[in-house]
Amino acid sequence: MNLRLIKRSLAAVAVFWLFAATSVAGAADDPLPSWTAGPAKTAVLEFVKAVTDAKSPSFVKPEERIATFDNDGTLWPSHPMYTQLAFALDRIKALAPQHPEWTTNQPFKAVLDNDLEALAASGEKGLVELVMASHAGMTTDEFEAIVSDWYDKARHPRFKRRYTELAYQPMLELLAYLRANDFKTFIVSGGGVEFMRPMTEAVYGVPPEQVVGSTIKTQYEVQNGKPVLMRLPQIDFIDDKTGKPVGINKFIGRRPIAAFGNSAGDREMLEWTGAGGGARLMMLVFHDDAEREYAYGPANGLPDTKFGTFPQALMDEAKQKGWVVISMKSDWAAIFAETPK
Amino acid sequence: MNLRLIKRSLAAVAVFWLFAATSVAGAADDPLPSWTAGPAKTAVLEFVKAVTDAKSPSFVKPEERIATFDNDGTLWPSHPMYTQLAFALDRIKALAPQHPEWTTNQPFKAVLDNDLEALAASGEKGLVELVMASHAGMTTDEFEAIVSDWYDKARHPRFKRRYTELAYQPMLELLAYLRANDFKTFIVSGGGVEFMRPMTEAVYGVPPEQVVGSTIKTQYEVQNGKPVLMRLPQIDFIDDKTGKPVGINKFIGRRPIAAFGNSAGDREMLEWTGAGGGARLMMLVFHDDAEREYAYGPANGLPDTKFGTFPQALMDEAKQKGWVVISMKSDWAAIFAETPK
Repeated sequence: MNLRLIKRSLAAVAVFWLFAATSVAGAADDPLPSWTAGPAKTAVLEFVKAVTDAKSPSFVKPEERIATFDNDGTLWPSHPMYTQLAFALDRIKALAPQHPEWTTNQPFKAVLDNDLEALAASGEKGLVELVMASHAGMTTDEFEAIVSDWYDKARHPRFKRRYTELAYQPMLELLAYLRANDFKTFIVSGGGVEFMRPMTEAVYGVPPEQVVGSTIKTQYEVQNGKPVLMRLPQIDFIDDKTGKPVGINKFIGRRPIAAFGNSAGDREMLEWTGAGGGARLMMLVFHDDAEREYAYGPANGLPDTKFGTFPQALMDEAKQKGWVVISMKSDWAAIFAETPK
Repeated sequence: MNLRLIKRSLAAVAVFWLFAATSVAGAADDPLPSWTAGPAKTAVLEFVKAVTDAKSPSFVKPEERIATFDNDGTLWPSHPMYTQLAFALDRIKALAPQHPEWTTNQPFKAVLDNDLEALAASGEKGLVELVMASHAGMTTDEFEAIVSDWYDKARHPRFKRRYTELAYQPMLELLAYLRANDFKTFIVSGGGVEFMRPMTEAVYGVPPEQVVGSTIKTQYEVQNGKPVLMRLPQIDFIDDKTGKPVGINKFIGRRPIAAFGNSAGDREMLEWTGAGGGARLMMLVFHDDAEREYAYGPANGLPDTKFGTFPQALMDEAKQKGWVVISMKSDWAAIFAETPK
């Protein structure tokens, strides 16, 4: 090789490394690598830039950077049924030997027979009965142990992973990105607070005190000299639909500047968030990816569902109010982590 | 002055400055300058040292360093009456022109006549009526504005300061000291959450989302296209006595490792805190300083009170369980900031 060739090669190598380094730096700089380039990703990046730039007219003080996230269908799947319902059904089956009457009484018989049609026919009243039978009558510590054990052992019927290993990777990146920009991230879910808290810190990086959800009543008792909180079979608060702004006001006491949901149950949370002054970001995850996850609406002509319905009216309101609809199919490069932590 | 004298003088000056510098450094190193040396101060310092020292068997991870503080009588005075009651009475007087029936109907007549005996005779039922008439029937935003305005204008009848300028200086130091050691500080009060939140961040450094208290029901409504939360005249939750552990579990979802109160209303909060494993700190402020603040019990033979009663049984339980009783008279070098911020 003559000198000229060597020089050329060296130059080529240098250009290659320069390019590679730029490219690597580019990837490392991207806080949302699982989001494809497009309007959803751009909306997030521009919003965060605007509210964190002290020179921007949209600047928001760090203590007011509150972001609220729905859980089911927004941070993890809500199909083929809500995770908490899968838990309740498993618990009913586990407790059945102590309740021989359940083999004849509805809605319990439906659960034990895996008769989803009869279960659906029992309606909301039946559902509440199942929740009370499976979620009450023990101390808060006992319930936490039961839930943690279930999270460890149960597997999603389609993806064959633990439910906690099905957090949406793009949303984990979004949560981390917001926190890196001094946001406080809250979960505001229709699900039970004490069903979520055992896993939110490890899975989402959201500590228990930043989880808002539905609650049942508890009662302070001293048992053998030891204080306990007994879970009573009485609903205390339903954190869904109009209950979400109520829950946000009660538990957080500040209006969020960003809110993320996926269904009709999140409509009022997004309205409440959007009604504040200054820059706001409202986003809805739209499940249009039957191949990698699920596809349902009934917006955009997709089939309707009992677990996270997204009616056309919500799609219309989103368009009218500038809420960003995230297409799972086109806005997310990945749905789940390849190797769950 | 001869050279020797000059040298001596310089040496003296040097010693003086050395001493002064050491002394200043000593004061700067004391995180609790308004606490006199004694068992209460020592208990705080030793507890914080134990739970923050990674080599200590009592080490507690930062995210689990939760400290809860009662408000009335613990962080600011509760005499001659609860601050929120003073607010309610002022509101009733302000609203009276719109309610001619109040000049004849109890308990409103008692308020307008400044007849505290008749007011007391109306009992808890009367008190709830007053709270509902003064705290409900407006949006949450309107109520916040009313409360903020009152905090600005009202003055404590004895100390002639704004109520927000009467935070106990030693407790402000304690709150800051715990936060400097990665504690999350929460208020857990029988008072109304939305009466406290407008001032807790500025006065105590406690953000709204870390304030737990009593709540009334709110309802989401859209008025002229704008979503609002209306405050309804219905009690939602009373965060007092056995309600405190319930509130801690509901709003925080972790057991505190330190809890601070001053009355029978805090007993269960301290029991609940103390029943967890590992190092724990439970403290009760005892009001035994009639000269600088107030003196009441009936523990230790002091006169009883309706606003923060400290019965002898609580003093006995404190001794038995190792809860530290803070004597305002002897443990606190100052009660209020000399110049409130």
